[in-house]
Amino acid sequence: MTAEQFADRHIGPGPDDERRMLEAVGYSSVDELMDAAIPEVIRWHGTLDLPAPASEREALAELRALAARNTVAVSMIGLGYHGTHTPAVIRRNVLENPAWYTAYTPYQPEISQGRLEALLNFQTMVTDLTGLATANASMLDEGTAAAEAMTLARRASKSRSPVYVVDADALPQTVAVITSRAEPLGIEVRVLDVERDDLPAEFFGLHLQYPGASGAVRDHRALVKAAHGVGALVTVAADLLALTLLRPPGEIGADIAAGTTQRFGVPMGFGGPHAGYLAVRAGLERMLPGRLVGVSRDADGNPAYRLALQTREQHIRREKATSNICTAQVLLAVMAGMYAVYHGPDGLRAIARRTHEAAARLAAGLRAGGVDVADVPFFDTVTATVPGRAAQVVAAAAERNVNLRLVDADRVGVSCDETTTAAHLAAVWAAFGVDGFDGDVDAGLPGGLTRTSDFLTHPVFRTHHSETAMLRYLRRLADFDYALDRGMIPLGSCTMKLNATTEMEPITWPEFADVHPFAPDAQTVGYREMIAQLEGWLAEVTGYDAVSVQPNAGSQGELAGLLAIRAYHRERGQGHRDVCLIPSSAHGTNAASAVMAGMRVVVVGCDADGNVDLVDLDAKIDKHRDALAAIMVTYPSTHGVYETGIAQLCAKVHDAGGQVYVDGANLNALVGFAKPGKFGADVSHLNLHKTFCIPHGGGGPGVGPVAVRAHLAPFLPGDPADGRPAISAARYGSAGILPIPWAYLRMMGADGLARATGVAVLAANYVAARLRAHFPVLYAGNKGLVAHECILDLRPLTKATGVSVDDVAKRLIDYGFHAPTMSFPVAGTLMVEPTESEDLAELDRFCEAMIAIRAEIDKVGSGEWPAGDNPLSHAPHTAAMVSADEWPHPYPRSVGAYPGDTDRVGKYWPPVRRIDGAYGDRNLVCSCPAPEAFEED
Amino acid sequence: MTAEQFADRHIGPGPDDERRMLEAVGYSSVDELMDAAIPEVIRWHGTLDLPAPASEREALAELRALAARNTVAVSMIGLGYHGTHTPAVIRRNVLENPAWYTAYTPYQPEISQGRLEALLNFQTMVTDLTGLATANASMLDEGTAAAEAMTLARRASKSRSPVYVVDADALPQTVAVITSRAEPLGIEVRVLDVERDDLPAEFFGLHLQYPGASGAVRDHRALVKAAHGVGALVTVAADLLALTLLRPPGEIGADIAAGTTQRFGVPMGFGGPHAGYLAVRAGLERMLPGRLVGVSRDADGNPAYRLALQTREQHIRREKATSNICTAQVLLAVMAGMYAVYHGPDGLRAIARRTHEAAARLAAGLRAGGVDVADVPFFDTVTATVPGRAAQVVAAAAERNVNLRLVDADRVGVSCDETTTAAHLAAVWAAFGVDGFDGDVDAGLPGGLTRTSDFLTHPVFRTHHSETAMLRYLRRLADFDYALDRGMIPLGSCTMKLNATTEMEPITWPEFADVHPFAPDAQTVGYREMIAQLEGWLAEVTGYDAVSVQPNAGSQGELAGLLAIRAYHRERGQGHRDVCLIPSSAHGTNAASAVMAGMRVVVVGCDADGNVDLVDLDAKIDKHRDALAAIMVTYPSTHGVYETGIAQLCAKVHDAGGQVYVDGANLNALVGFAKPGKFGADVSHLNLHKTFCIPHGGGGPGVGPVAVRAHLAPFLPGDPADGRPAISAARYGSAGILPIPWAYLRMMGADGLARATGVAVLAANYVAARLRAHFPVLYAGNKGLVAHECILDLRPLTKATGVSVDDVAKRLIDYGFHAPTMSFPVAGTLMVEPTESEDLAELDRFCEAMIAIRAEIDKVGSGEWPAGDNPLSHAPHTAAMVSADEWPHPYPRSVGAYPGDTDRVGKYWPPVRRIDGAYGDRNLVCSCPAPEAFEED
Repeated sequence: MTAEQFADRHIGPGPDDERRMLEAVGYSSVDELMDAAIPEVIRWHGTLDLPAPASEREALAELRALAARNTVAVSMIGLGYHGTHTPAVIRRNVLENPAWYTAYTPYQPEISQGRLEALLNFQTMVTDLTGLATANASMLDEGTAAAEAMTLARRASKSRSPVYVVDADALPQTVAVITSRAEPLGIEVRVLDVERDDLPAEFFGLHLQYPGASGAVRDHRALVKAAHGVGALVTVAADLLALTLLRPPGEIGADIAAGTTQRFGVPMGFGGPHAGYLAVRAGLERMLPGRLVGVSRDADGNPAYRLALQTREQHIRREKATSNICTAQVLLAVMAGMYAVYHGPDGLRAIARRTHEAAARLAAGLRAGGVDVADVPFFDTVTATVPGRAAQVVAAAAERNVNLRLVDADRVGVSCDETTTAAHLAAVWAAFGVDGFDGDVDAGLPGGLTRTSDFLTHPVFRTHHSETAMLRYLRRLADFDYALDRGMIPLGSCTMKLNATTEMEPITWPEFADVHPFAPDAQTVGYREMIAQLEGWLAEVTGYDAVSVQPNAGSQGELAGLLAIRAYHRERGQGHRDVCLIPSSAHGTNAASAVMAGMRVVVVGCDADGNVDLVDLDAKIDKHRDALAAIMVTYPSTHGVYETGIAQLCAKVHDAGGQVYVDGANLNALVGFAKPGKFGADVSHLNLHKTFCIPHGGGGPGVGPVAVRAHLAPFLPGDPADGRPAISAARYGSAGILPIPWAYLRMMGADGLARATGVAVLAANYVAARLRAHFPVLYAGNKGLVAHECILDLRPLTKATGVSVDDVAKRLIDYGFHAPTMSFPVAGTLMVEPTESEDLAELDRFCEAMIAIRAEIDKVGSGEWPAGDNPLSHAPHTAAMVSADEWPHPYPRSVGAYPGDTDRVGKYWPPVRRIDGAYGDRNLVCSCPAPEAFEED
Repeated sequence: MTAEQFADRHIGPGPDDERRMLEAVGYSSVDELMDAAIPEVIRWHGTLDLPAPASEREALAELRALAARNTVAVSMIGLGYHGTHTPAVIRRNVLENPAWYTAYTPYQPEISQGRLEALLNFQTMVTDLTGLATANASMLDEGTAAAEAMTLARRASKSRSPVYVVDADALPQTVAVITSRAEPLGIEVRVLDVERDDLPAEFFGLHLQYPGASGAVRDHRALVKAAHGVGALVTVAADLLALTLLRPPGEIGADIAAGTTQRFGVPMGFGGPHAGYLAVRAGLERMLPGRLVGVSRDADGNPAYRLALQTREQHIRREKATSNICTAQVLLAVMAGMYAVYHGPDGLRAIARRTHEAAARLAAGLRAGGVDVADVPFFDTVTATVPGRAAQVVAAAAERNVNLRLVDADRVGVSCDETTTAAHLAAVWAAFGVDGFDGDVDAGLPGGLTRTSDFLTHPVFRTHHSETAMLRYLRRLADFDYALDRGMIPLGSCTMKLNATTEMEPITWPEFADVHPFAPDAQTVGYREMIAQLEGWLAEVTGYDAVSVQPNAGSQGELAGLLAIRAYHRERGQGHRDVCLIPSSAHGTNAASAVMAGMRVVVVGCDADGNVDLVDLDAKIDKHRDALAAIMVTYPSTHGVYETGIAQLCAKVHDAGGQVYVDGANLNALVGFAKPGKFGADVSHLNLHKTFCIPHGGGGPGVGPVAVRAHLAPFLPGDPADGRPAISAARYGSAGILPIPWAYLRMMGADGLARATGVAVLAANYVAARLRAHFPVLYAGNKGLVAHECILDLRPLTKATGVSVDDVAKRLIDYGFHAPTMSFPVAGTLMVEPTESEDLAELDRFCEAMIAIRAEIDKVGSGEWPAGDNPLSHAPHTAAMVSADEWPHPYPRSVGAYPGDTDRVGKYWPPVRRIDGAYGDRNLVCSCPAPEAFEED
C-alpha cells in the first residue's frame, strides 16, 4: 500500500524525460553523471539521516498535530506585534495565490508591473502616514529597519561622534538588534530615558519610539530640535496605525522613520514574516538601503514602474555597499499595502479610533478599580502598575486565554488592536481583579499630538473598497506579472523550483498564523518542536552541528555567520583577525556583509576557468596571515561549477588560522551528495527560499538560517536574554513560514532530496548541451560538466551584432519566458538554472526559444534586420503595439508577437514596452503618480 | 468598538455611488424607490428575525466552533462515498480559486474555453473508463444520474412495459431516488436479486450496480443479454476507480452507465457536492439529459469547445423536455477530471490496485480470524457476516475512529479507498476481534472480469503529472475564462453577485469536507446544527414554515415542491388534480419539472406588459378547475417586473383548490421587502447559488432548497427511512457548501439583506434609466420601475440593421464584459441583472459600453460599415486576429481590439473567435480531440 511519492510531483522530469536528457548529456544514469560532476574529494556517499518520506496527506496530518500543540490566545502583549484581521480576500488572493507568491524579484520590470504597482502603493502608504518624502519597498522587520536607520544616520550625519542614543522606551528587541549591529561597526549605543536624562554632548543619531513600548505618546519636538542642534539625525520608530491619529514623524522634524506594517493585515506568525518599513525626508532618498520602486516610462512614453536607483544595491557596490540588504518582504508588503487600499484612509482611521477607544476604556476600567495606570497620553497600550502582582495578573489573564506583557515585577502592559472586543477587556479587568467600566470614555488625544494632515489621498486608496472591486484589482495586478505558475523562471543562483501547495497550506492555519513571538512557551510547543526538527534536518543535510533559523534573509544569515566567526576569534584572543577573503566571483552581498561584521575585504582573483585562483589565494593568505579571519566562498561557485580545489582552499585557510564560510546559495547542487560541514567549511547560511522551497514572493520573504560547526555554535543568534546576538527582531525570525521547508524535507526524504539534486544537475547540463552550439557555455568543471546552472556567454555576439544581453532577456518575454539571471556573475552573460522541477517539455521549449533567438541575432548581424529596429531591440512586444493601426517596422507583426512556436491562445502579454530605467532615476518618483500620468497621449 | 460591517464589502456602491444612482433614477432614497417599486399588496414591513450581523472574523469563528462539533473519522462505509486525497494543487487552484468558482455556465463559449476544456477532459475520462461512446458534462449525484438513466431507458426502449428492474445490490440511496422519481411517472420499480430471482417477462430497463453495494463484482453479461432480449436497456451504475481494473460497462453490452466521480479527489462533504456522471452507447447521445460539451470550430476554423446540442435543454423544449436538469456540477467535474489528468492512467490504476490490495488484505485478515467473508470477487468492499454481532463490531470500530457500514444485525460492510492505511486495517481487525494478517495476499481478480482495454490515452492525461505542470495547466485554462474576478457578469435571472472569500473558506476545512453522509449522528452535530439554523433563517427570509436543503439544484427543488403539492392533494383525496398552470414567460425548467411530477402543463398567456394575463388565467382556471393542482409563477416575473396582480393570482388559484408555487429564482428582489410565504404562495424553491452566494462554479454546484407552508411540510424531502421522498442521494444534498449561505446570512443580518435588495433594485433601475434612450427597456411595473433586472429590446435594431443580439453579446467581450442573458425570456433581447455587488464605476463602464455599441450598430445601419464585415459581426476579436500580418477589414484594428475606453494594459483576450455551434452539432465530438486538431493551418 505504498502511497505516491511527493518527490515524483516535485521533480519535473519523469523516467522517460530523464532517459532522454541523460542521452543528450552522454551519461547512462544520474548517479554516473553525479559521479563525474562532483569532485570525489568533497563527495559524501551516505544516505541522509532523515525520516522516511511522508506523503502529502501525512505531512499535512503531522503539521496539523504540531499546530494543535500551539495555543492561539488573544494577544495583548503589543511590542510591535498585534492582532489584525487579514481581509479574507487578501489572504486568499495574495498570500494563498501562486501568481503572487511564486513570482521572482521584479528585476525584469516589464513582466512585474503588478507587484511593482502594489509596492508603490506600499511606499505611498508609508510616506503618507509617516509624513516623509520617500519610503523603500520594505525592510525585513522593525528591528533590522531600525538598525539600518542607525547606519543611514551615521552616513548622513555631520557629527563624527560614535554615539547613537536610543530611547529607553524603544522596543526591547529593537534595542537588541541595534546593539548587535552597532558593536562590529564601532558604534556606541547609549540607551537613555530621553524624557529625563540629559542627552550626550555629541551623538550622530537618536532613535525614538512613537508611541513608546510603554504606550506613552510623547511630544518629541524639543528632542528633535536638540538632536539636530548637534548634527544628529533622528529616527522615529513609529506605529503606522497610530499615525492615522497622531502627528507624523515628518511633521515633527524626524529625518527617518522605521517600523513594521505587520498590523496592516499580516498575521503575527510567531514573529514573521511581515514587512518592516523605512522612510526618509527629502535629501536622504539616495542613501536608503534596500529596494525602491519608482516610476519611469516605457518605449511608448507610458508610465511604467521599475526598481529605482539599483546601482545602490550591494551586488554592484560590493564592499563599498552600506548595507547588505538584498531582499525585501514583498509578499507581505503587498498584503499591507492592499490592507490600506481596502480600508482606505477613513477605514484606517476608524480602526485606529476603535483601537484607541478600547485602550481608553481599558484604562478607565483599571482606574475605576483603583489600579494605577500611567498618566500619559497613549494610543493602544497602557502600562498598569500593580506592585508585586504583575506576574500574578499576567497569569490570571493567561488563564482567560489572554496574553499580557509582563514588564517587570510591578508593571503589566496591555495593548489593544483591531481584534480587541468587549469580552477581551472584560477578561483583562477580571485578571486585574477590577469590575471594569461601561460608561462613556473620553478617547481624545492631546491637541498638540493629533494629526491634522490628510493621507492616502491617491484614488487607489479610495476605489477598491468593496470585496468585488478588491478582488478584481488583485486579479488585474496578478495578471500583469509572470510567475512560476505561467512558466519557467530559469534564474541562475536563485533556484526557482516548485513551491508545492502542500508546503504552503499550513502557513495560513490560525495555529501557525496567529501566534505572538513573545507568547509564553507553553503556548508554542508545536512551533518550537517543528523548528527544532527543522534545524536538526538542516544540520543533517549540511553536515553542520548546529543551526539557527533566526536570520530572516540570506544576507542576515551571512552577517550572523560572520559575527559568529568574529566572536569566536575574539573569544580566543584573536580579535585582531579582521581580514575576510572574498573571491572576485562572489555575490556582492558577501562583501557587504563582511564590512557590516567589521571586517576588511580582500579580494582573491579567479583563474581563466573561473575558479578561485589558488596561487593568488596563497599570496593573499601570506600577506594577511595574522589578520586572516575568514574566507567566504560559494559552492558550487557562482559560476555554477564544482570547483575541484575547494578542499585545498579550506585547508589553506584553516592552516592560516582562518575560518571557512561557504555561502549556501547553491546548496541545491549539493544536497545528498556533499555536505559543506564535512568538506571543510565552518559555517554556512542556507537560503530556504532557494533550496528549501520557500517561495520568492515577488522579492521576499527570504529565510537565511545559519549553520555552524560545533566550535561556532555558542555564537549563533538566539535570545538576547540568553546572551545571544539578535540578528532579527524575533527569536525564530520568520517562524510563520518555516512549515514550508519542514514539509519539503519531510516529504522528500533522503532519496527524494538526492534525486532532486541529481535532476537539477542533469537539467543544467542538458540545457548546456543543447545550447552550447549556439552560445558558448562559459565555465565548466570535471569532464566539461556544469553543476546546477550554466552561463551562456553573449559577449562575442554582442560585439559582433550589437544585440545586448538585455535585448535577449526582453525577447525571451515574447517567447513566453522569464529571463535568466543577467550579467551576474559575469557582465554580458546569462546564467540559467533550470532546477529539478521543470519537465523536459519546458526545458525544450526554453532551449528552442534560445536557439530561435540566436537565429534572430544572426539576422541582425547579417543586416537583414536593421540594428535599432528589429524584434530584439523592440522586445518585449505588447498586445497594443502589435495590434496598433500603424506598423512601421521592417519585420511582420507576427514575428514580433508570436515568434517560433509561441502558444497563440495562451500567450502572456506584458503590460508595458521596454522600460527606460535611467529616465526614472533622473526623475525620481517613488509614490503613486497621479492618475493623469496614465492617460493615453 | 463596532467592527466594520460585511454588508459594506458585499454591496458594491458606497454612499456617494448610491446618491448618484438615486439621482439618475429620480428618487431621494432607496426606501422611497422600493416603496414605489414593490406593490403594497405584497410588501412586508417588518425586520427579519435574524441574529445581529457577525463580522467576517466572528462568522469564521462561529463556523470553526460548529466545525469542531463534527468528528472527522476514517470512513470505511462506502456506498458510493469514499475517502480521497484531493491533490492540494487542485484544491488551491480550482476549488479555492475565484477564477474557477465565480465563473458562470459556459453559454458564451468564446470566454469559457478553459472550463469547457476541463469538462471535455471529464467527459473523456468517463467515456474511456466506462467504455461507452458519449458522456455528459456531469450529473448532480449518482442517485439522480441513475434516475435520469431510468427515464432515458424508458424513452429509448421499444418495450412498452412500465417495469424497471433494479438490482437488490444497488446503493440504497439510489433505489430511494429512483423510487421517488418513478412513481409520478407511472414507472413500476421492481427491486430483485438479479443473480437469483427470475427477471419479469417484460421490462423496459434494468439497473445493475457494479461492483454491488455489498462489494460483489459479478459478471453481468448474461443479464445484459437477457434484458436486451426483451427490448430493455441496461444501466450499469459503475465505480470509475474500479473500472481501471474491471471490464467496463461498454464492454459487457451496457447501454448506459451512471455513477459518481466523488472519489476522484472531491471531498465527501457530508454528501455533496460532487459530480455524478452519465454515459451512453453510440446512438443514444442525442437523448442524454444535462449539458454536453462538444468540439466545434471558430471563425478561423480552429477547434473550439462549446455546449453541444443545446436545443435538448429544457429552457427550449419546455414541457416537451424529458428532464428538468439545468445545471451540472461543473466545479466538481473539473476537479474530478483534473484528478485524472494529474494521476494519468497509470496513477489511477496504481490507486485502484492499492485500494483493492487493502480490501484483499482486510478480507484475508478477517478470514484468518475466522470471520465469514462472502466468497465473491470484490474490488474495494467486503461484507463480513458476524451473526448478531454487527452493531457491536461497528461500535467497536467507531471507538477506534473508523466508521463501518452496518448492513443488518448480522453483516458489516467495510470499504477501502486510497486513504486506507495499515493502521486503518488494524483498527478494523481489532473491532472484529481478529489478529489480522501480514503475509502476502493474492489481490488478483477473476480473469473474465478484468479490464484489458486501454484508457485515458489522450496526451492530456499523460502530460501534467508534476505539480509544476499541473499548476500551469490550471492557470492556463483559468486565464482563458472570464469570471467575476475580472468584471461584471450582468446575467438576468442568474444573480451573479459577490461570492465572498469568508463564505468560501470554511468549505475546505477538513471538519466540513471530510464527513461521510452516513456518518453516525454523534459525529455530525455541528453540521446538523448549522443546517438547522440555515433552514430556519431561510424560512424566516421567505415567510415559509419549513425548509429542506436536500435538493441539490434549483430544478430538484422545483420537483420536490411539486411532489409535495402532488402528495398533499393525494392525501386529501384529490389525487386527480394534475394540471399545473405555467405562464408563457416561465423558465423552461418549470414545465419540465411539472411533467416529471406527473402533471399536465397548461400555459397561461401574458398581456402586452409582460404580466400574467389574469383574464386568460381565469379562463384556464375555469377550464381546469377540478383538475387544478397548482400554478407555478416566478416573482418578480422572469421579465424582471414586480407584477401587481400577484396577490390576486394567488387568491384565484387557491379559490379553485390549487396550490401556488412561486419560483424563487428572483428572490434577490424580495429579501427583506416581501415574503412569498406571506403573500400567498404555498411553496417555493430557492436558488442558493443565486440570492445566497453559492458561487456558480462555471455551471454548478447549485443548491435548491424547497420551502413550504405548514400544510406541505410533511411532504418535504428527507430521509427515506422516515418515509420521506428522496430527491437526491444524500439526506442534506450538497451539505458541504451550505456554510456559504450560512455565512452570508450570518454576516448580512436583517438590515444588510434588505440593503442588498434595495441596491440590487436601484442598480437595475439605474442601468434601465441610463440605457433607455439607446435601447428600449421592454417591461416595467409600478411607476415605470423594473425590479432587479431589466430587458433591453434589440429587435427593432436587429430588424433595421441586421445586427443580432448575438453580435452585441460577442461585442461586449471586446469591451471587457460578459454578455447579459441572451434571448431569455424574450427572443431578441438582452436581460441585465447588475446585482448589488457591482459598484457605480463598473455599472457605468457597462452602460458606456452599451451606448458605444449602440453607436456602432448605427454605423452598420447607416452603411458606414458593411453588414458582414464590421466590428460587431467579427466580435469577439482575439489578439491573434488584431495582430495578424494582414488586416482586410474596413475598420481599423484598434476599433476591433480596443473599442471605447477599453483598458489596454489589463484587457481580457478571448482565446478563440466566434464559434460555429451548428457545425459542432452536425459533427458531434464530445471527448478530447487528437492534438493534431489544434495544429495551425
